[in-house]
Amino acid sequence: MPIITLTTDFGEKDHFVGAVKGAIYTEMEDAKIVDISHSISPFHLHEAAYIIQNAYKSFPQGSIHVIGVDSELNPENKHIAVLMDGHYFVCANNGIISMLTSEIRPEKIVEINIHDRIISNFPVLDVFVKVASHIARGGTLEVIGKNITEIKELTGIRPAVSNQESQISGTVIYIDNYGNVISNITKKLFEEVGRGREFVINARTVKFSKIHSHYSNAINFDFAPEKREEDGKKLALWNSSNYLELAIYKSSSKTVGSASSLFGLDYRDAILVNFIS
Amino acid sequence: MPIITLTTDFGEKDHFVGAVKGAIYTEMEDAKIVDISHSISPFHLHEAAYIIQNAYKSFPQGSIHVIGVDSELNPENKHIAVLMDGHYFVCANNGIISMLTSEIRPEKIVEINIHDRIISNFPVLDVFVKVASHIARGGTLEVIGKNITEIKELTGIRPAVSNQESQISGTVIYIDNYGNVISNITKKLFEEVGRGREFVINARTVKFSKIHSHYSNAINFDFAPEKREEDGKKLALWNSSNYLELAIYKSSSKTVGSASSLFGLDYRDAILVNFIS
Amino acid sequence: MPIITLTTDFGEKDHFVGAVKGAIYTEMEDAKIVDISHSISPFHLHEAAYIIQNAYKSFPQGSIHVIGVDSELNPENKHIAVLMDGHYFVCANNGIISMLTSEIRPEKIVEINIHDRIISNFPVLDVFVKVASHIARGGTLEVIGKNITEIKELTGIRPAVSNQESQISGTVIYIDNYGNVISNITKKLFEEVGRGREFVINARTVKFSKIHSHYSNAINFDFAPEKREEDGKKLALWNSSNYLELAIYKSSSKTVGSASSLFGLDYRDAILVNFIS
Repeated sequence: MPIITLTTDFGEKDHFVGAVKGAIYTEMEDAKIVDISHSISPFHLHEAAYIIQNAYKSFPQGSIHVIGVDSELNPENKHIAVLMDGHYFVCANNGIISMLTSEIRPEKIVEINIHDRIISNFPVLDVFVKVASHIARGGTLEVIGKNITEIKELTGIRPAVSNQESQISGTVIYIDNYGNVISNITKKLFEEVGRGREFVINARTVKFSKIHSHYSNAINFDFAPEKREEDGKKLALWNSSNYLELAIYKSSSKTVGSASSLFGLDYRDAILVNFIS
Repeated sequence: MPIITLTTDFGEKDHFVGAVKGAIYTEMEDAKIVDISHSISPFHLHEAAYIIQNAYKSFPQGSIHVIGVDSELNPENKHIAVLMDGHYFVCANNGIISMLTSEIRPEKIVEINIHDRIISNFPVLDVFVKVASHIARGGTLEVIGKNITEIKELTGIRPAVSNQESQISGTVIYIDNYGNVISNITKKLFEEVGRGREFVINARTVKFSKIHSHYSNAINFDFAPEKREEDGKKLALWNSSNYLELAIYKSSSKTVGSASSLFGLDYRDAILVNFIS
Repeated sequence: MPIITLTTDFGEKDHFVGAVKGAIYTEMEDAKIVDISHSISPFHLHEAAYIIQNAYKSFPQGSIHVIGVDSELNPENKHIAVLMDGHYFVCANNGIISMLTSEIRPEKIVEINIHDRIISNFPVLDVFVKVASHIARGGTLEVIGKNITEIKELTGIRPAVSNQESQISGTVIYIDNYGNVISNITKKLFEEVGRGREFVINARTVKFSKIHSHYSNAINFDFAPEKREEDGKKLALWNSSNYLELAIYKSSSKTVGSASSLFGLDYRDAILVNFIS
């Protein structure tokens, strides 16, 4: 039985998540359900895409990922099921999938058309559960939708590269649980544009000229703790998803402060990489 | 093996939920445990009842719902197990069940009497796990308690109807994750009292004269986005649980504001439906 | 298949928890994963130890507990796997285990040495999942690490006893979901030192001369509700983990106030027990 994952903006408190799980178990007694997140900011497509993108690859091929963010059916928001990278996604055609597919082509996209049988303002419960269960039982996408080739695109989320390739102009796409600041600049893009040149990263008042691979690189373990010069323990690094991240070693938003609070960086703020030719 | 659900005010951080799950798995290796919510406000019986009421119906018949809210045993708070609507509930006799049963009669109620063997200030772990496991293994309620016919009633939670049926006087019973405001006025009551008459809903300074069925009804998709007149995107609708809800389309308490913050409505505030005869 | 539990400071929102679960299911299709908590304060070893200590004992023998707090590998923070009290623990050697073992000797400790094959700044995903899966399949600790006998000690977390045994000097180690204040003074230590003597507990401005066993002891059920004298419903009690807890009956941080807010007690504040000889 393939895994069904849930990524929603339902929150941890309301009955919505429990009701959806109950409905899946009612469809399939031996379902395997895994929560990815229910704390997406309401209707925040970029957050949802960032989180699902970095979680789905760990799951076994054939897993079915239900995304319950901005999913009410209306003339501008149809429901789709997508097969991509060996995984299934069930969600609204609101742009989330376009953010996952910048480097991967979907193998198949269908617009779900079982709604004549279902009228609902809780489509994750009433529509997505049916579709996910159908796929989990081995059903084909064509049975629950009609093939389409285009999906809605979300714009403004990819970094820009200047004409002479002297600069990558990115933005903050996520602040994580530790208050670390994640940009939309990937290691792949950085290496393609940079071609080994030196660089300076500018984000408000902070600057970095090196990108590390571990948070611990902020610390010089060659010296005893009291003799270390650690420059506020701040560093730029490639995070586990290979995005450029500005971080503070062992930060905590609630106590010692975090990269977000100390650098004054928030969602959508600019992060620039200037290459020195 | 039937599902055991958990609805508590234990929060997401403490060890309580983990300890309870461990104890269930120790009782039954192949238990199936599903979280409904652990973020009920501490000791908030109305919240707990609203959430369990709207979640349990999605689960398969025979599921066992453990409610860990205000469950310490004392002379005014006994433990009960209830069979109702094909589902089992294990909780304290503190009024929660009375809120679930306004339209459904329990088939069986027992007052749990296994406490002579268990002294505890963590009854969900020590008593409810034992009772739920007993039921999950197919045991009868009579083995773990004695039949009773009356349960504690919670008052003041049902809407009032005026003598001439010109008004339904309800209150806010829940604010959901989107900040939408949910009243205790059900579609069934509204239709029985209203009998198709026109009406005005009054809640503080907002008024509504129509009740929609979808959040998207706040938007007129016949016009291009820049030409739409949307009146703040506010609307009244029957939510997925068929309660009268005052909502704002795509609201978020943290960013654009929500029905609760913008209408100034909070738990227990009045919501009136005045029928025009 | 033994249970794998997860206790982390990853939070409820980010993709980290979902990614780790996906990786475990990719290793073992029929894995059984249970969340203990993902809301540990970032890098807070004492909180993590308190929570795992009070949760693990409920799980079946042979369960595998993954602790993802402060787990990045560096010269001062190695990875270990520990067999203790019939349970396995996979974590960093950062002192957490020392807090669990004050009364229990680990049966086996290995320093994990599979890192030559894995370079990562997300060790829970890349290292701990592999180790936990190895143990779950019945593998021995020696295959994934080398035996060691010493683990890092965390200091300053145990209560002090005065020379004449007239005083136990403890501190606040945790504030729970209800705002109740938990000290590091155990019932066992109290009884050993106190030997039945009378005592006064002092914590800032509050005093207690009795330690109860139930929250309901704050209420005198012999009187009708309106005739009860309840002294603010405050009490000291042995909590379900047998730690000395200062509590308020049916408290809630958000509404009526809690022991923490009303007594002015926070993490690391002093709690003194003075025995009257």
